Amino acid sequence: MRNIKLIIEYDGTKYCGWQSQKNGISIESTIKSAIENIINEDVKLIGSSRTDAGVHARGQVANFYTETKISSEKLPFAINSKLPHDIVILSAEDMPLDFHARYSSIGKRYSYTLLNRKIPPAIMRNYVAYCPYELNFDLMKRAEGYFIGTKDFSAFKSTGSSVKTSVRTIRDLKLDKIDDYIRFEIEADGFLYNMVRIIAGTLIDVGLGKIKAEDINDIIDSKDRKRAGKTAPASGLCLEKVYYKNEDKA
Amino acid sequence: MRNIKLIIEYDGTKYCGWQSQKNGISIESTIKSAIENIINEDVKLIGSSRTDAGVHARGQVANFYTETKISSEKLPFAINSKLPHDIVILSAEDMPLDFHARYSSIGKRYSYTLLNRKIPPAIMRNYVAYCPYELNFDLMKRAEGYFIGTKDFSAFKSTGSSVKTSVRTIRDLKLDKIDDYIRFEIEADGFLYNMVRIIAGTLIDVGLGKIKAEDINDIIDSKDRKRAGKTAPASGLCLEKVYYKNEDKA
Repeated sequence: MRNIKLIIEYDGTKYCGWQSQKNGISIESTIKSAIENIINEDVKLIGSSRTDAGVHARGQVANFYTETKISSEKLPFAINSKLPHDIVILSAEDMPLDFHARYSSIGKRYSYTLLNRKIPPAIMRNYVAYCPYELNFDLMKRAEGYFIGTKDFSAFKSTGSSVKTSVRTIRDLKLDKIDDYIRFEIEADGFLYNMVRIIAGTLIDVGLGKIKAEDINDIIDSKDRKRAGKTAPASGLCLEKVYYKNEDKA
Repeated sequence: MRNIKLIIEYDGTKYCGWQSQKNGISIESTIKSAIENIINEDVKLIGSSRTDAGVHARGQVANFYTETKISSEKLPFAINSKLPHDIVILSAEDMPLDFHARYSSIGKRYSYTLLNRKIPPAIMRNYVAYCPYELNFDLMKRAEGYFIGTKDFSAFKSTGSSVKTSVRTIRDLKLDKIDDYIRFEIEADGFLYNMVRIIAGTLIDVGLGKIKAEDINDIIDSKDRKRAGKTAPASGLCLEKVYYKNEDKA
C-alpha cells in the first residue's frame, strides 16, 4: 500500500468547489476520475481544504492510497493527461501511511486580490474581486496588525461548518498595492469557514472608512458575525500553500 | 464634430485579434457595434495597434468621430453596458480633430509573461506563454541591453506587413522573475509585425543556451529573420500603454 501526496493547481471558475455537490462538477471528483482512469483502482481522494465555488489554488494538497506501481515522478504527467486544462497536478510524492492531507496540516497560506477602480476588469476577471468604490490603502494597511495572533475568530466565520473551536492563530497578514490591484497574503494554523473572505470584506470596509482599524479588536472580541464585513467574492481567493511538519521527510 | 479617444482593456483569448477577419469575431467590430448601439451613428474606429488573436491589452487606444452629445465622462459606462465581459472601455476623452490613434502615437509599451516549469498552467493559462524547458534567467537578463537603441530590426519582423522602414528605437527592456514566472516589459517608438513575440522567442533561446546574448548584435546586423528565435505564443503578450505627444492637452 502506498500513500501519495499530490500538490494541485486549479482555476476554480467553472467548478462547484473542491467537494462534490448535488449541482455542478467538483474539482475532487474530476481529479478522482482522472486518477482512477490511470491506475485502474477506486480511490478516495482526501483534500486539505474544501475550497468554495470560484476559489482557486496554486498549492492545494490531497492524498490517496493505492497499489499502483507507477512512480511518483511519472504520476503527475499521467494524471494531467486525463485532466481538463483548468486543473494540473504539480507534483506527487510517496508519504508515510499516516499522512493525511487535512489532519496532518499545520498551516495554510491564502492570497486575496482586489481590483479597485471604477471600471470592472476585462483581463484576469476570474482571478480578482472588483471594488468600484475608492479604497484608502493606508487605512487598510494599518488594519493588518490587528488580525495577527491567537484569537477566537467567531466573528469571521460563516455558519454551516461544525468545528470544535473558533480559536485560530494568524501568523502573517500583509497587504500590497500595485497600480489598481490590492493584494494580501494571509497565513494561519488553519482557517474557519469563509474566514479569509470575511477578513477581505472587513478590510474593504476599513478602506471605505466604514470600519476603523482600531475597532477590529472589538469586532473580534464581540464574536458577532454581523459586526465584521461582508463575505468578499470567491474569485479573489487563492489557496497558495499548505504546510506540514517535517516536510523534507517522506 | 467630436473626436473621441478611448483607452481599452481586453482579454484577447476569444477573438481573432483587433482587426476584422474573415473568420472569427474581432475586438474592433465588437466595440464598433457597442458604440453604434449607444450613439445611433455609424462610426469608423481607428485602433493604435492591430493586436493578433489571443493578444491582450490593458491600454489599447482607439479614436472615432461623432456628433453625439453624450459626455466623455458617461461614454465608457454607456458603451461598457453593451460590451461582453472580456472588453472594457477604461476612459473616453475629447481630442483635437487631428488626433489619430495610430499616426499620432509616439511610442508603445508591451509586456510578455512566460511560465517556466515542467507542468503547464491551470491558473492564468490564457495570460502566459508556457515553456517546459529550464530557462537560465541570468543569461536572459544579460541579453536585455543588446536590444536597446535605434536599429534596423528586420530580423525581428514577420513577413506580411508593409512598412517603409524597419528601423525602430527600443527605449527600454527589463526582465523580472517571480517564482516560476519570467516577465519583461519593452518600450519602443513603434514595433514591427510580431516584433515583441520574436524578441520573446529569442530571449527564450538565450535562456535555453541556443543563442548567446553577445550574438544578438550579429543577429540584428544580419537582418535575417531565420537567425532570430521563433515567434513566441500570443497568450503571453499584452499591450500595456500607447504614448502620445502633449498627453495632458485635449
